[in-house]
Amino acid sequence: MEEVVDTINYDKGYGSVTLVDTFGDDNRIANVARGSYKKGTKQISNDEQLLRYLIRHEHSSPVEFGQLIFHVKIPIFVARQLVRHRTIKMNETSLRYSEAEDRFYVPEIDQFGPQSKDNKQGRSKLADSSIAEYAKEIYYKTVTNCFDAYQKMINRNISREIARCVLPVSLYTDISISWDLRNFLGFCKLRLDPHAQYEIRIFAQALYDLAKPKFPIIFKAWEDYIRDAHTLSVLDQKLLMTITNIHTEIPTEENALAIGMSKREYTEFCAWLTVLQLTNKKEQ
Amino acid sequence: MEEVVDTINYDKGYGSVTLVDTFGDDNRIANVARGSYKKGTKQISNDEQLLRYLIRHEHSSPVEFGQLIFHVKIPIFVARQLVRHRTIKMNETSLRYSEAEDRFYVPEIDQFGPQSKDNKQGRSKLADSSIAEYAKEIYYKTVTNCFDAYQKMINRNISREIARCVLPVSLYTDISISWDLRNFLGFCKLRLDPHAQYEIRIFAQALYDLAKPKFPIIFKAWEDYIRDAHTLSVLDQKLLMTITNIHTEIPTEENALAIGMSKREYTEFCAWLTVLQLTNKKEQ
Amino acid sequence: MEEVVDTINYDKGYGSVTLVDTFGDDNRIANVARGSYKKGTKQISNDEQLLRYLIRHEHSSPVEFGQLIFHVKIPIFVARQLVRHRTIKMNETSLRYSEAEDRFYVPEIDQFGPQSKDNKQGRSKLADSSIAEYAKEIYYKTVTNCFDAYQKMINRNISREIARCVLPVSLYTDISISWDLRNFLGFCKLRLDPHAQYEIRIFAQALYDLAKPKFPIIFKAWEDYIRDAHTLSVLDQKLLMTITNIHTEIPTEENALAIGMSKREYTEFCAWLTVLQLTNKKEQ
Amino acid sequence: MEEVVDTINYDKGYGSVTLVDTFGDDNRIANVARGSYKKGTKQISNDEQLLRYLIRHEHSSPVEFGQLIFHVKIPIFVARQLVRHRTIKMNETSLRYSEAEDRFYVPEIDQFGPQSKDNKQGRSKLADSSIAEYAKEIYYKTVTNCFDAYQKMINRNISREIARCVLPVSLYTDISISWDLRNFLGFCKLRLDPHAQYEIRIFAQALYDLAKPKFPIIFKAWEDYIRDAHTLSVLDQKLLMTITNIHTEIPTEENALAIGMSKREYTEFCAWLTVLQLTNKKEQ
Repeated sequence: MEEVVDTINYDKGYGSVTLVDTFGDDNRIANVARGSYKKGTKQISNDEQLLRYLIRHEHSSPVEFGQLIFHVKIPIFVARQLVRHRTIKMNETSLRYSEAEDRFYVPEIDQFGPQSKDNKQGRSKLADSSIAEYAKEIYYKTVTNCFDAYQKMINRNISREIARCVLPVSLYTDISISWDLRNFLGFCKLRLDPHAQYEIRIFAQALYDLAKPKFPIIFKAWEDYIRDAHTLSVLDQKLLMTITNIHTEIPTEENALAIGMSKREYTEFCAWLTVLQLTNKKEQ
Repeated sequence: MEEVVDTINYDKGYGSVTLVDTFGDDNRIANVARGSYKKGTKQISNDEQLLRYLIRHEHSSPVEFGQLIFHVKIPIFVARQLVRHRTIKMNETSLRYSEAEDRFYVPEIDQFGPQSKDNKQGRSKLADSSIAEYAKEIYYKTVTNCFDAYQKMINRNISREIARCVLPVSLYTDISISWDLRNFLGFCKLRLDPHAQYEIRIFAQALYDLAKPKFPIIFKAWEDYIRDAHTLSVLDQKLLMTITNIHTEIPTEENALAIGMSKREYTEFCAWLTVLQLTNKKEQ
Repeated sequence: MEEVVDTINYDKGYGSVTLVDTFGDDNRIANVARGSYKKGTKQISNDEQLLRYLIRHEHSSPVEFGQLIFHVKIPIFVARQLVRHRTIKMNETSLRYSEAEDRFYVPEIDQFGPQSKDNKQGRSKLADSSIAEYAKEIYYKTVTNCFDAYQKMINRNISREIARCVLPVSLYTDISISWDLRNFLGFCKLRLDPHAQYEIRIFAQALYDLAKPKFPIIFKAWEDYIRDAHTLSVLDQKLLMTITNIHTEIPTEENALAIGMSKREYTEFCAWLTVLQLTNKKEQ
Repeated sequence: MEEVVDTINYDKGYGSVTLVDTFGDDNRIANVARGSYKKGTKQISNDEQLLRYLIRHEHSSPVEFGQLIFHVKIPIFVARQLVRHRTIKMNETSLRYSEAEDRFYVPEIDQFGPQSKDNKQGRSKLADSSIAEYAKEIYYKTVTNCFDAYQKMINRNISREIARCVLPVSLYTDISISWDLRNFLGFCKLRLDPHAQYEIRIFAQALYDLAKPKFPIIFKAWEDYIRDAHTLSVLDQKLLMTITNIHTEIPTEENALAIGMSKREYTEFCAWLTVLQLTNKKEQ
């Protein structure tokens, strides 16, 4: 596909993401949303106001009318996390049809950190660079050895679908992806998160950076209301209420407007805080 | 959305379907499919050959890379059948936000046929036109009465979401749809079928007619291998084998080529028939 | 299906929801989750602790292993909102096969409130009961008239699929539903919300009440971390920071433990607040 | 999960599939289907008759009310094909949380066949056993070497999520699966097919063998109408018509009944053949 919009080499290795094409823009999504209400309700004529309202209230149907096509080169272990997002449409190079190429993800030396103690699924910052160098050498030798073995089998005409079984999950694979904007943002929510593995985070960030300029209003709203929002559980809210003053004071509307809030957002904020203050009193 | 490609008024009433925009074409889908095999397998350079192969073997992943946006006006009872196709993305005008308009589907006189005797879910051809006229009059009066009642409640400022409860399922509703090509064709398979209700069949046909010119090779292949194909059950195949000559004769390759078959298709046909002939003999 | 667990008549009319059967329980879901980690990570042996962790961190895959089968009788306009949740599996009585029964949703008098001024999609509390009585009378006469018309057409043997077109969206329909627990809770999130229409809210509440005793730990966690949680946007967080003391004070661990928080939750709360306090200072 | 129904070691290696639990049976699915039609249509009281009708006409909604839970141990390259079936619900052991175990799929010697010439994605029967032995030795050494490298990194406390990148796609992984019956059968259609890779075919067959006794009527119908059915394209049908006698002869009803066909199936068969014969004549 030759319509390539832009490409990012996101991991200093063979990894790359290309935005091949996009379908729709902020304005189309706003117009689809306008279809919900016709006679009898004053329409929001301003796209930005309407789209921020949609994102804030999780009215996600119209957001599904944006579509993105990417072509990506990622290690198999990253592809395995990607494919768990069941709403993507994808087509992957098959090692039953094609011969593998000699392209493996080999982490930079500072990625060979020790197992994290508090995060059972993650790693800590590099502690001992001699261990890291030792590990990287083993790593590199092993993936090279795998490819040699693969090549030897291919040279003797062993079927591709069997020979590939010795290749490691660090092998790069090529995938075409078609994604609707709503579910793309759902993926970003999970995979831009600090708990996601570093290798998928930098991949997700690259996709995000390519897509954002195509739907700038929606992405900005999504950052404000989803990515950078913080959810307080019932317990969190109770704990917040132990702070001095918080159960008697209400922020002023001047402050709210100065921050850039709409009147409606301010009203909803006050409604939440007031209920919390009342509940808190009752429980004392 | 102003990019309208084309519109069909499909039902002689208020019903219409508009193709708003399409994403991708035959060539893109062929290219996505080519991504499956790279080094080591000779690529099929001809789009038509490749796309027919895809459709014939149900390699549907690349077909999902085509996308269609429609805007449709259909009666609620048709919309209820449409929405059962869970892969569509849609946004519908809400009668909680909007006032209903006075637009109902009123069938043509010849659609007031009697309940079919052999098809439990269908209707027979019009038998008695005086009954049909009687029925159409009742029908028309009833939907008009419903709208009057609705209007009276709206005029007294009863909430829209309650007033609309008296409106019948023949009311037209407005829906924006975004559909990937694979699942759109899946919908067409079911809803172009003669067992589908007449009102959704003419709707599906209109969508089909608008979409076909955008992906002409794929639609032609789909007609040959899916729409107009016929599936023989185990029992059907056994019954076929009771025809004289059929278990000794194999069609010639000349005939196959004359019909326009590829060698591969001919080979597969013969493989099927041969096995059937052998099985049939064994069982005699 | 005769295994009926329990039934609720949820709307004082013909509406009812029946829990037919459930698959799995809290313990199964905990065990599926334990499958994620084996050698090398200490398992959380306590089901409650593990399940609350899952819900709090949106690890939703194991929650999909619970399954619920309901049989429901709901008005068509509620069914149309229900079916938008594309992850349900359902089978509905067809008015092409079956004759409609004379069962309509007729709202209680206090539901005939006026159109809400601030909520474009909702209604206000009943203001004028004479208008309500006037509306209810119109409403009742209209739906009765519709059924008479339907009956007349059926009596003359007009096909069911055409005759039903005069029936209003307040007609009750019968639906069997199979739902996985994760997506059921997603539905509850949206439809228990005060912005949802009253008629689907009481329906969702009835489903919720039937399901909760089958997975008590998960439902309690979901209430604490999802239903009753509150999400603060970037702007909300800024506004919160304008309250006196909040950018210097950190709740004590004693308070946190007294409230019932885990150490981990307390740590995460403090991490959030500290970053907010620092950001806030920087911006002054 | 201790409710294990049955387990099959399907690949002579570490591979196994366990049926953990099933939800529903033939009778439940028949009853859900009966919900489609009530007053006005005579119900099919016989489960077998009704279920065969459903499968034959692809009325798949009720079939989604069956649910199956499996626990499987399969090589990563098989898991990658499995997960492309987007309707499964699954939870997999994570190598970010858990240490890998020394379990690899090593094909039997007769699986080291050469690349197929006519099937671009497959392999031919073993030709030269000395090449196969050579290949198997390389294969075995390579996967062993990978595990040694992994172990060395783990021993030096390199994070699990990085160390695992050297492990090959022949490593076994543990997955819990929850599947509705309809989509399970869709998977079987594709993966029991001779074009599917041997390793996923034997896996699919094992799942199939475990599931079949739980829904015996549905599986039998599915074999007759789907698995062992044969679809004739437009071209296939034309070619069939070149056989002597076929465009003048119609199988007798006696033969049809003797084979076990229903009258309806016979009628539909004759309708198809008659149209084909007429079309064929017209074109001569």
